[in-house]
Amino acid sequence: MHINNPREQEFVDKLVRKGLLIPTGVAGVYGRNEVFEDVIHRFDDFITVSARNDMAEVIRFPPVLNRKNFELSGYLQSFPQLAGSIFSFEGTTEEHEKLLDTIHEGKDWSIYQKMTDVVLTPAACYPVYPVAAARGPISQAGCLFDVMSYCFRHEPSTDPARLQCFRMREFVRIATADEVVQWRDAWIERGRRMLEDVGLFVISDVANDPFFGRGGRMLAISQREQRLKLELLVSICSDENPTAVMSCNYHQEHFGHIFGINDESGNCAETACVGFGMERIALALFHTHGLDPNRWPAGVRGKLWH
Amino acid sequence: MHINNPREQEFVDKLVRKGLLIPTGVAGVYGRNEVFEDVIHRFDDFITVSARNDMAEVIRFPPVLNRKNFELSGYLQSFPQLAGSIFSFEGTTEEHEKLLDTIHEGKDWSIYQKMTDVVLTPAACYPVYPVAAARGPISQAGCLFDVMSYCFRHEPSTDPARLQCFRMREFVRIATADEVVQWRDAWIERGRRMLEDVGLFVISDVANDPFFGRGGRMLAISQREQRLKLELLVSICSDENPTAVMSCNYHQEHFGHIFGINDESGNCAETACVGFGMERIALALFHTHGLDPNRWPAGVRGKLWH
Repeated sequence: MHINNPREQEFVDKLVRKGLLIPTGVAGVYGRNEVFEDVIHRFDDFITVSARNDMAEVIRFPPVLNRKNFELSGYLQSFPQLAGSIFSFEGTTEEHEKLLDTIHEGKDWSIYQKMTDVVLTPAACYPVYPVAAARGPISQAGCLFDVMSYCFRHEPSTDPARLQCFRMREFVRIATADEVVQWRDAWIERGRRMLEDVGLFVISDVANDPFFGRGGRMLAISQREQRLKLELLVSICSDENPTAVMSCNYHQEHFGHIFGINDESGNCAETACVGFGMERIALALFHTHGLDPNRWPAGVRGKLWH
Repeated sequence: MHINNPREQEFVDKLVRKGLLIPTGVAGVYGRNEVFEDVIHRFDDFITVSARNDMAEVIRFPPVLNRKNFELSGYLQSFPQLAGSIFSFEGTTEEHEKLLDTIHEGKDWSIYQKMTDVVLTPAACYPVYPVAAARGPISQAGCLFDVMSYCFRHEPSTDPARLQCFRMREFVRIATADEVVQWRDAWIERGRRMLEDVGLFVISDVANDPFFGRGGRMLAISQREQRLKLELLVSICSDENPTAVMSCNYHQEHFGHIFGINDESGNCAETACVGFGMERIALALFHTHGLDPNRWPAGVRGKLWH
């Protein structure tokens, strides 16, 4: 559990008073009003327009994932604490009565739930790899996907920028090592320009994922040394501790190997992804330009409401 | 599990060949291409434009719900078999190793998962009631919400119209009994006109929810006798067995009582909701007008692509 920070609480309180965020009684789960949603949709459109010439293949998945593919993906090796699995009731009428009694008594009813074939999507790109693999060998030019999904991470927090359920727009490149690295690195500069275009002050940094457990520290160091994860960060609750709003990741052969994505000669394809944290970008815009988008600088409005 | 039907399989195969649906290996969970998503968004906009003068308050929730509110809602009494609860790992490094070994051996790893504070949203209106209650007494005019969410129902099926994860656009009215019934009934006619405007052949019917277990049959009969659930149905896989694409529900005091939604005199408010099944409407449009929206009748295109 994230430690409460007075600046975060102050920002959340402002957003709630203005109606932009609507508490649900669970940390990191909010409703949003029309103004907040409009900002998300406008930035989403801005991404679409900015990347239009790339001709990415658009696919949209629901926020659940085939559990078997999730087990293969390696997510539970690295981030077991963040994953969400979906359980359901498969019992008899008698067990149903016991389930209801247990709830009525305020006790734990998890024994009446069984694991289903689906889990929550942890990052928008996860459903793409098995789909790409099923199509057969990757052509010389490789492929490029455009995905967006609600993602789930089990990390209840009072930080408004650390939601349990949030939208991630992502592009996924599958090609040779040289090509995916070049594509990923080009997106760092392009992403920086896009965020600066909407008036955000951006810094870039080498980063690491929140790997779990004792072995996690070594994985994080290795990930940083190889510069596999580059982030663009902006101020949301604090100027001293900026928040990542874009993450540009080079997976090497990780997904290609697991899901059997190969080129026409049978060589394992490499992958990279570039993700935008949509709620974080909206929060950064509200933090930077104020809570009323009608009063945002003309240049910023011109980019988003064109 | 729904019984496989050759017409359903044929329609799914056509949609998959055309790329409109993308299998994920789990029944009732598909990716969708840009054409399918565009149809969803166009009909979503058509709803917005059609209901613009109602001045509904727009709120968007993520696809997860506070578990405590879900327990109160009565959903687990009526539909335990459809609900999805979210579990997560909260163990130590040692337990993590056991979790990975269990997955590696292809065994059930559910003992390493604990129930979290959130469940999947079963219908888009569920998060609204506690929010309305928290605002205090309902005014004379009542209130009207516009919500949309991915919803989850654990009913793996080969019927393309019976997805495990789908989008529902809903309007929710909270007011006096007379007012909510009148509002619900007016939507039956308005919904019929909207569906006919896009070239669908619509029938309306009194319906019942899929209540669980031995007691469920009596609940279904009572719901029908009181005409609490009215549906608009169109053809998707079969003309003989049309599918509900809109559901107009009168809840009486159910949610008002549970969540403490009262008017200024302390009387329990009544509620009704009107929901559009977005994927079902898109599927009905593809079934009726063909798989290429560019070749749909000009009148239909004019309503959706204006």
